Amino acid sequence: MSINTWKTDFYRATLDSDLSQQLNNLASALNAWEDKSQHADQKMWRKQLSHLPNINPSVFSLGDIVTIGAEDDLVEGEKLRLRQVLQNYMPWRKGPFRLFGVDINTEWRSDWKWQRVIPHIDKLENRRVLDVGCGSGYHLFRMAQENATQVIGIDPTALFFYQFHCFKRYLPTINVHYLPLGVEDLPATNCFDTVFSMGVLYHRLDPLLFLKQLKQQLVKGGQLVLETLVIDGNQQQVLMPGERYAQMRNVYFIPSCEAMLVWLKKVGFNDPKLVDMNTTTTDEQRTTEWMPNHSLSNFLDPEDKAKTIEGYPSPKRATFVAYK
Amino acid sequence: MSINTWKTDFYRATLDSDLSQQLNNLASALNAWEDKSQHADQKMWRKQLSHLPNINPSVFSLGDIVTIGAEDDLVEGEKLRLRQVLQNYMPWRKGPFRLFGVDINTEWRSDWKWQRVIPHIDKLENRRVLDVGCGSGYHLFRMAQENATQVIGIDPTALFFYQFHCFKRYLPTINVHYLPLGVEDLPATNCFDTVFSMGVLYHRLDPLLFLKQLKQQLVKGGQLVLETLVIDGNQQQVLMPGERYAQMRNVYFIPSCEAMLVWLKKVGFNDPKLVDMNTTTTDEQRTTEWMPNHSLSNFLDPEDKAKTIEGYPSPKRATFVAYK
Amino acid sequence: MSINTWKTDFYRATLDSDLSQQLNNLASALNAWEDKSQHADQKMWRKQLSHLPNINPSVFSLGDIVTIGAEDDLVEGEKLRLRQVLQNYMPWRKGPFRLFGVDINTEWRSDWKWQRVIPHIDKLENRRVLDVGCGSGYHLFRMAQENATQVIGIDPTALFFYQFHCFKRYLPTINVHYLPLGVEDLPATNCFDTVFSMGVLYHRLDPLLFLKQLKQQLVKGGQLVLETLVIDGNQQQVLMPGERYAQMRNVYFIPSCEAMLVWLKKVGFNDPKLVDMNTTTTDEQRTTEWMPNHSLSNFLDPEDKAKTIEGYPSPKRATFVAYK
Amino acid sequence: MSINTWKTDFYRATLDSDLSQQLNNLASALNAWEDKSQHADQKMWRKQLSHLPNINPSVFSLGDIVTIGAEDDLVEGEKLRLRQVLQNYMPWRKGPFRLFGVDINTEWRSDWKWQRVIPHIDKLENRRVLDVGCGSGYHLFRMAQENATQVIGIDPTALFFYQFHCFKRYLPTINVHYLPLGVEDLPATNCFDTVFSMGVLYHRLDPLLFLKQLKQQLVKGGQLVLETLVIDGNQQQVLMPGERYAQMRNVYFIPSCEAMLVWLKKVGFNDPKLVDMNTTTTDEQRTTEWMPNHSLSNFLDPEDKAKTIEGYPSPKRATFVAYK
Repeated sequence: MSINTWKTDFYRATLDSDLSQQLNNLASALNAWEDKSQHADQKMWRKQLSHLPNINPSVFSLGDIVTIGAEDDLVEGEKLRLRQVLQNYMPWRKGPFRLFGVDINTEWRSDWKWQRVIPHIDKLENRRVLDVGCGSGYHLFRMAQENATQVIGIDPTALFFYQFHCFKRYLPTINVHYLPLGVEDLPATNCFDTVFSMGVLYHRLDPLLFLKQLKQQLVKGGQLVLETLVIDGNQQQVLMPGERYAQMRNVYFIPSCEAMLVWLKKVGFNDPKLVDMNTTTTDEQRTTEWMPNHSLSNFLDPEDKAKTIEGYPSPKRATFVAYK
Repeated sequence: MSINTWKTDFYRATLDSDLSQQLNNLASALNAWEDKSQHADQKMWRKQLSHLPNINPSVFSLGDIVTIGAEDDLVEGEKLRLRQVLQNYMPWRKGPFRLFGVDINTEWRSDWKWQRVIPHIDKLENRRVLDVGCGSGYHLFRMAQENATQVIGIDPTALFFYQFHCFKRYLPTINVHYLPLGVEDLPATNCFDTVFSMGVLYHRLDPLLFLKQLKQQLVKGGQLVLETLVIDGNQQQVLMPGERYAQMRNVYFIPSCEAMLVWLKKVGFNDPKLVDMNTTTTDEQRTTEWMPNHSLSNFLDPEDKAKTIEGYPSPKRATFVAYK
Repeated sequence: MSINTWKTDFYRATLDSDLSQQLNNLASALNAWEDKSQHADQKMWRKQLSHLPNINPSVFSLGDIVTIGAEDDLVEGEKLRLRQVLQNYMPWRKGPFRLFGVDINTEWRSDWKWQRVIPHIDKLENRRVLDVGCGSGYHLFRMAQENATQVIGIDPTALFFYQFHCFKRYLPTINVHYLPLGVEDLPATNCFDTVFSMGVLYHRLDPLLFLKQLKQQLVKGGQLVLETLVIDGNQQQVLMPGERYAQMRNVYFIPSCEAMLVWLKKVGFNDPKLVDMNTTTTDEQRTTEWMPNHSLSNFLDPEDKAKTIEGYPSPKRATFVAYK
Repeated sequence: MSINTWKTDFYRATLDSDLSQQLNNLASALNAWEDKSQHADQKMWRKQLSHLPNINPSVFSLGDIVTIGAEDDLVEGEKLRLRQVLQNYMPWRKGPFRLFGVDINTEWRSDWKWQRVIPHIDKLENRRVLDVGCGSGYHLFRMAQENATQVIGIDPTALFFYQFHCFKRYLPTINVHYLPLGVEDLPATNCFDTVFSMGVLYHRLDPLLFLKQLKQQLVKGGQLVLETLVIDGNQQQVLMPGERYAQMRNVYFIPSCEAMLVWLKKVGFNDPKLVDMNTTTTDEQRTTEWMPNHSLSNFLDPEDKAKTIEGYPSPKRATFVAYK
């Protein structure tokens, strides 16, 4: 697998599934992305990929730390070089990863989130899985570890696409693919057994439309796994922050768990359930060597950690499951 | 003015305004509507228009009762015939109208709503005005009475288009036009001085996107006039009804007034204000001879008129103004 | 009429005709042209138009010399200035024109061609006329002189568009319009009474398709007037020059008159007739002050004027009429 | 290989070639064809395919008679049934074929044409080949026999698509594909080493555009093999028949060989050569049991076999080769 064949690798992997019925639309969307992804950063990111060690990793494991290759696979000097290549893709938000002994300590302990989610969802074995807003793809690899038939992640942020390919090139045989698209760019495929979306809904100004878009990717009976920011309160409690929330500009509806359950039913999901609720700690989301910018601790009220610096409730995240 | 020239009449009226820059998009949208509006009802509605009296009205006035022609304009038998033609366009929701002495007593006393709104908005004189969700067009005629330069109403419901043309054909010289489109079908024209939307927002599953669509029809500095259902409560109070609200299936977000003001700011409107709040009475919305189906009184809890039969707060409507 | 309103002037003029049914397509094509016509020459040409004298011409006549204004309409110095403005639009190929006393002596004596054609065609009075490949629009003005209801010229060459507008701005009331389009950009309007195409067919590599495109602009029963290069010979005689013909690269099929008549029938024209045949002389097409480049005399064999310098028969032009 | 997977089989086969860059366009064109190919004949043709014997052929050979399976592969009664199934796809024009012992004696002895062409063209071994206007696909199988890497035939006639699939289903491993498209539906792929077009050019009203379309399917240096009707004569000799030629309505330009060579150069082909000329005989094209309609002998003048019944020269076909 090379970066040059990521599209055809994806096409080949989908020819036997119902996704192949949407090949024209998918190929058009991917071509459109390539046509417009010509800015300087992307050229650099693409080029840097070719500077990754051109060797076969001796080992890999897709556990809590997604690990590819051993330190000994590299000769003298190559590890420093590898570290430099990977630094071009900073900031690294979702992880952790370890590549030929280089530890990428990401802003998020995404393994903690995964540990909270995995006990509550239907087994992924033999299922086709879509992850909407997949970031670097950390969770895609974890889903593959659970023996999903096929795992497809989508995220329109170009940087994450290249982060993903730092690892994918060493795993040519796993059926995991990253499409640099938003869910609104996907045709209605109605063909995934499980659809994940973690950390996206509150960035959408049209959350019910977003839920509908997720639904039209699921097969009848398929499972949605949705994680988003929530507030405390009853069915009628929904926070719309002013200009910023925890310094982010693009945060819109933050419902209570009760309101979220009503929304899920409203767009036609069956049997929605809250399966986890968790207040994000500054241990789980924090500044690291690989994400040196401000992180959660900078966004909370120094006097009262229960509030953001704008005075809103500090981030609490809930996970829901529901069926189509 | 005849039904056959409604499009070219509109084009001619807009050639001198900035709307003409969108002529290709507008013409495409209107052609698309015509192409798909071939079902049996529409053919009948279109045909019945030709059975309206083919005379020039002796008088007209666009006051509380939009009145065109006098009873004496018709000869013996024509009035009965006229009544029969108009009955083809039932149910009549927004009015009242009087056409050659035939009183169309509509479900809504839309004149009452107008009286509540008009004192609070910028004068319409010499302004270009858009009404999103204009229904039969009752308010369009009232806006024309206020000496707006041009009044354009949009509403995708075909029946309302034909109701409007029952009157428009007698008023060939007024600069009032109805386009059978949704606001999502309009290109961003940025050219109206005032944009109205009354009674639409709660039918949209994406109310913030809707507000953005309204905003992109306004000139910089133009005024939005928005009327929608509200509930009591603070900034974080938003009702999402279950399957139905007052028996309607397509009701989504019902915010508190405070929440609505936050939403308006969030999408970039300036200086949003609540200018009117009003609990809808069964005098204002009720079953009539021209709308014989169930109306508000049937949708309220018989034991407690403060609640809908589903147990939600009964309809309270608020009007907001804001600037782009 | 100003250059800024040429599109809306055209739309207004066509709202009462069947052309209005194609408004969306026409407006899309014209917008597309504007979007791509941003190169430096065009900006200069557009700007220079504003330097033309801003006065009402005292006289105009659309005779052999298309004449607008009198020399005395200008004050001292303005005539020199006018000449300089007009020189920006060189080379001038089709004419002659006289503007406020400035004589534009064009490469072609297009008046001679017009004199040969006009006796043989149906009267243009009260007809809608299209001229495909209209160049500077010289013939458009002559068609207006014949009292055509409406005259529309199309030609994709930007320079000719601006040449046309040097005159059109002084004739705001005549129903003559120039659309910077090729016939392949026009929707099938089926609405012109007469369609002219003079000097285009041999530039098309698909002449039968071209004839079909002309046909679909005509009303049933409308007249085609077609002028093109021909060779001597029978029905099966068609010249395809090699790389160049009379130094022009883009010359394709040159049929005999007999072959041309077969072609016209083949695409469904009725009653095709040859009405004029003429060997182009170096008096009719020649280098002038306003077209200083090489012209016909340079393209003929100096030893044998009956041949081009490539050895093909020298240009002979025939005019055909036919009915849809 | 089943009829249900013909598209994905094609996609899979092209993912490693430059064709994959056009996957979106190809998939869109094929989907468009499927969407519109719902008429009754096609449903029957598709259904009948499933009634072909569901067995693996014991032998196959792609020689002069394209032969698949042996008579003994079938049990009692199956051969009669097979014959009946194949009769649904009449008329059979291009062949001959033999399927499990059933001889399909087609209108044309296409093997004779192949024998005339094959000695004159570059070896097909290891080349990607396109056949424009491939009919039943007889020649596609012959090209595969010559060890072409990949053979793609295109022809928009639906019947031929189903004829082809009567054989293709028994040859799942050969890299031969039929796309039910016209060359004008193909994107410019610039990726075939050899492009054939036999018997198409005279059906096109725009033969030069057709040549350009063929050219843009070839790699630089690739070979065109073009067979078409010709007349005797010099460079300027081109026949355009009137309404019909040999009873066919859709016959346009029939050039002399000399004229054809000029056309090929005109659109930019290098080194064009005439390699074969042949007067079609009534032995090569004739009525058979599998094509019971009138054939060549009915279309010639009974008094003078050198003329068609319309009086034109009777069919003479020439083959040209040229390079891009």
